[in-house]
Amino acid sequence: MIESPMQKAVCLLSGGLDSATSLACARAAGFETYALSFDYGQRHRIELEAAARVAAHLGAAAHQTIRIDLRAFGGSALTADIDVPKGRRTEEMSAGIPVTYVPARNTVFLSIALAWAETLGSADIFLGVNAVDYSGYPDCRPAYIASFEAMANLATRAGVEGISRFRIHTPLIELTKARIIQLGLSLGVDYSLTHSCYDPVEGLACGQCDSCLLRLAGFAEAGAADPLRYAGRG
Amino acid sequence: MIESPMQKAVCLLSGGLDSATSLACARAAGFETYALSFDYGQRHRIELEAAARVAAHLGAAAHQTIRIDLRAFGGSALTADIDVPKGRRTEEMSAGIPVTYVPARNTVFLSIALAWAETLGSADIFLGVNAVDYSGYPDCRPAYIASFEAMANLATRAGVEGISRFRIHTPLIELTKARIIQLGLSLGVDYSLTHSCYDPVEGLACGQCDSCLLRLAGFAEAGAADPLRYAGRG
Repeated sequence: MIESPMQKAVCLLSGGLDSATSLACARAAGFETYALSFDYGQRHRIELEAAARVAAHLGAAAHQTIRIDLRAFGGSALTADIDVPKGRRTEEMSAGIPVTYVPARNTVFLSIALAWAETLGSADIFLGVNAVDYSGYPDCRPAYIASFEAMANLATRAGVEGISRFRIHTPLIELTKARIIQLGLSLGVDYSLTHSCYDPVEGLACGQCDSCLLRLAGFAEAGAADPLRYAGRG
Repeated sequence: MIESPMQKAVCLLSGGLDSATSLACARAAGFETYALSFDYGQRHRIELEAAARVAAHLGAAAHQTIRIDLRAFGGSALTADIDVPKGRRTEEMSAGIPVTYVPARNTVFLSIALAWAETLGSADIFLGVNAVDYSGYPDCRPAYIASFEAMANLATRAGVEGISRFRIHTPLIELTKARIIQLGLSLGVDYSLTHSCYDPVEGLACGQCDSCLLRLAGFAEAGAADPLRYAGRG
């Protein structure tokens, strides 16, 4: 009996809670996973170490980190000298596009994922965007994802030759942070390996930026303990 | 009298004949131009020097070269150790997708152009794709360009806030190489500054790869002399 080869999926992996869960979903769906991270000049560059730990923990067949200097353009609190907001209430977070929005970031990342997928002969890309993100970031909305998918199918060899259709999988897109955490725990994700903070303090999560606050609220709502250590919380 | 500020356009500039002409079109259309080049591990890296010369010659307000290592993925004669075809007839060139196709290259380049445009407050991107290219490269076809434009308008702040609409300008898309050359000459492009060869020999164009052959045939058909020096042609 000859086993059919596993299908490959390229999985965007920042090292955060969402992308780790999305990678676990790809594995659970039976894909051989190819994890892709970006060193793009982000102030929370420490997340790349988390990405490597998570890729190994979740059995990725390969993990690539591509350097691309989005600092050359600036325009975001994550890539320029603009302060990361701290201690905001949920209502404040969801009013408009946050300053942590990086212009066209998901488009750049998905495009590079598409280049790798096409080279690997893979037609599947996983991205950990979710309902919390898409209330504020334009490039996390379902309409955007559908549009990128349509474009990808015209952009590539596959689109001309009609061999396969690219799919952008967003398994978390309808989920709240609490539901994502419950899903990840059920798939065996070790969240102590992940990193979510936009503005770490001596290697520890600050506990005050939007990303930390959403994570902490998500764990509380999920009825689980966040295994991370936070600055100033012992 | 206060002059209204010039509108900005991001212009993809490889250093080749087509992108130089496309940049000249953006200038002729009244845009302040921001030239964008990529150091992506291409074997004809010498084109980046041509890009810098062309950006200066055509009065670009700025020129950025972004490094991104597409060699990490391979998959093309331009980025991996695959031979560049030489001495092909036009019929051979137009049969199928050439091995010089770089997976998702225009998507990656346009995405990064979009990131810069959004940061600059520009809604216009110029790309020098044309009828000769789109017979072979999937990501040069008009349907692909229209699809990228639709995606770009969902991907960004502009799409959410309804401030402006991104346009991907492809002024050469319907033109043959000969018509592009005639257009560029009429706009004052100095083609001695450009570089087209995929596989240069000691800094000189090889005269035998698809790109050199199309360029030489284009100049002949345009009734103009190619000011470049070619290897082995004195």
